[in-house]
Amino acid sequence: MGGAILHINGNFNFHFSCRSNLDRSRLPAKPAMVKFQPAESYWASVNAEIEASLRQAIPVKEPLVVFEPMHHLVSAAPPTTAPSLCIAACEVVGGRRDQAMAAASALLLMHAATYTHENLPLTDRPKIDHVFGPHIELQTGDGMIAFGFELLAKSIQPGQNNSDRILRVIIEISRAMGSEGVIDGQYCKILGTQSVGSDSCRVDWMKQAIEKIEGRLHACGAACGAMLGGGSEEEIEILRRYGFYVGMIQGMLELDKRKEKGSMEEVEELRNLALKELEVFESRKIEAISCFINV
Amino acid sequence: MGGAILHINGNFNFHFSCRSNLDRSRLPAKPAMVKFQPAESYWASVNAEIEASLRQAIPVKEPLVVFEPMHHLVSAAPPTTAPSLCIAACEVVGGRRDQAMAAASALLLMHAATYTHENLPLTDRPKIDHVFGPHIELQTGDGMIAFGFELLAKSIQPGQNNSDRILRVIIEISRAMGSEGVIDGQYCKILGTQSVGSDSCRVDWMKQAIEKIEGRLHACGAACGAMLGGGSEEEIEILRRYGFYVGMIQGMLELDKRKEKGSMEEVEELRNLALKELEVFESRKIEAISCFINV
Repeated sequence: MGGAILHINGNFNFHFSCRSNLDRSRLPAKPAMVKFQPAESYWASVNAEIEASLRQAIPVKEPLVVFEPMHHLVSAAPPTTAPSLCIAACEVVGGRRDQAMAAASALLLMHAATYTHENLPLTDRPKIDHVFGPHIELQTGDGMIAFGFELLAKSIQPGQNNSDRILRVIIEISRAMGSEGVIDGQYCKILGTQSVGSDSCRVDWMKQAIEKIEGRLHACGAACGAMLGGGSEEEIEILRRYGFYVGMIQGMLELDKRKEKGSMEEVEELRNLALKELEVFESRKIEAISCFINV
Repeated sequence: MGGAILHINGNFNFHFSCRSNLDRSRLPAKPAMVKFQPAESYWASVNAEIEASLRQAIPVKEPLVVFEPMHHLVSAAPPTTAPSLCIAACEVVGGRRDQAMAAASALLLMHAATYTHENLPLTDRPKIDHVFGPHIELQTGDGMIAFGFELLAKSIQPGQNNSDRILRVIIEISRAMGSEGVIDGQYCKILGTQSVGSDSCRVDWMKQAIEKIEGRLHACGAACGAMLGGGSEEEIEILRRYGFYVGMIQGMLELDKRKEKGSMEEVEELRNLALKELEVFESRKIEAISCFINV
């Protein structure tokens, strides 16, 4: 079977193979009449809200050398849309923004911790400039991961009986960040960088890395938002797939920017698949969430 | 006021000052008739059980390069009694061993992750031999932290209605491992190592590190065990203090072994304080848990 193949099993394990010989007859037609918000406006405003919420949550106290770097390292990481997609998914299933704010903040923290650790001056890496010493960056990264789970665990809302949903979100995020998700993706990235084979072999590793990092993280963000907003199991899975396509699109665009042969044709096909997922929702409801495929 | 001072506030923030001019009149007398198990037998058997449970929980699958190091790094870390103290605390309040097994496994994972990251070959550290490359050790450590939280979150027991207790344990462990606990302690350790002042100044930093690492981790382990075993709030706080003393004793003995002036007199006083905490429990119940101050 050609085309974009998506396997999802009970373990939330994705395999997505982007091949250039996609079987177009199987692709959905692009739904007409979807009114996009200006691409970045929803994302930018929600993102600002998440950052503000996180700034308030990260304590600033003595010893400053322990607490200050966390603030700095969160802002130093490159932008990601996974946290704001989590909020959008919560809203699209009828939830309130505050119900997903802790999960969105945790995702932002984890993303920043991953970036910090990826750029740590290990002895086998080229030396680059850092604001803080290696010790501080390593330990602050660890602290950020732990703090993300703390934020999530204490987001129980009185009278909402949401403990089980929060525990489910903790499982989702720990799996996405762990050895079956981001950690595996980082390993693929290393293999891609070190690959001495053909260009296509290197690009294949990079695509696998995108699946496991950007794809998995956005799938997780969207699914968690839907869970916290009270979405049905069907809505959660639809939004998980939508999130996965969003992450793949963004990773592929990044490859393209770096002249790494991310194919714009594949991106267009991923956009179609993503929009197809949103068809079950009323069109006025998807205005905000659909902007993510155009960020 | 002289003596060992222990402040506990709502933030689970400890300050323990071990001074040699302890005011002996304030110390409790050593309770008579406490029958100890042979010091290491309970700990060793429970620890073996926790390790076996963790070995089963850590998946071994492709890519092996991602999953194998986790097994190795868990066994490579030096032994710690915090996980088995968690089990003992659960049992002393009348709980079953399996109720605290996920929390004990998570504590063991987090301890191993901390040890792995502390020994990472950063560019500002002396080069030492490692089984895996720096990338693998860094990322596996991150994966271990995430996996610890996953284990905890999925330890909901059907019909036990224990979600809220598990969320509370997640908060406890994330705080103990985070910037207010182990991370802060590691910073104190660095200050102690780099300290150019007097010997006593260096020892003060090392003691602060012990409070925040061994003290905090054992306090957390014992409190979490009590929570999961269904202990009352009073029992949880008693066992938290007991755990703190256990951690302090072990840290001080370690200092002593390294000829770092850990005072055996202080250790004896900590043992007395620890035993005093156990007086509320029936003496037959404390046989197992009291062995931790003699490990």
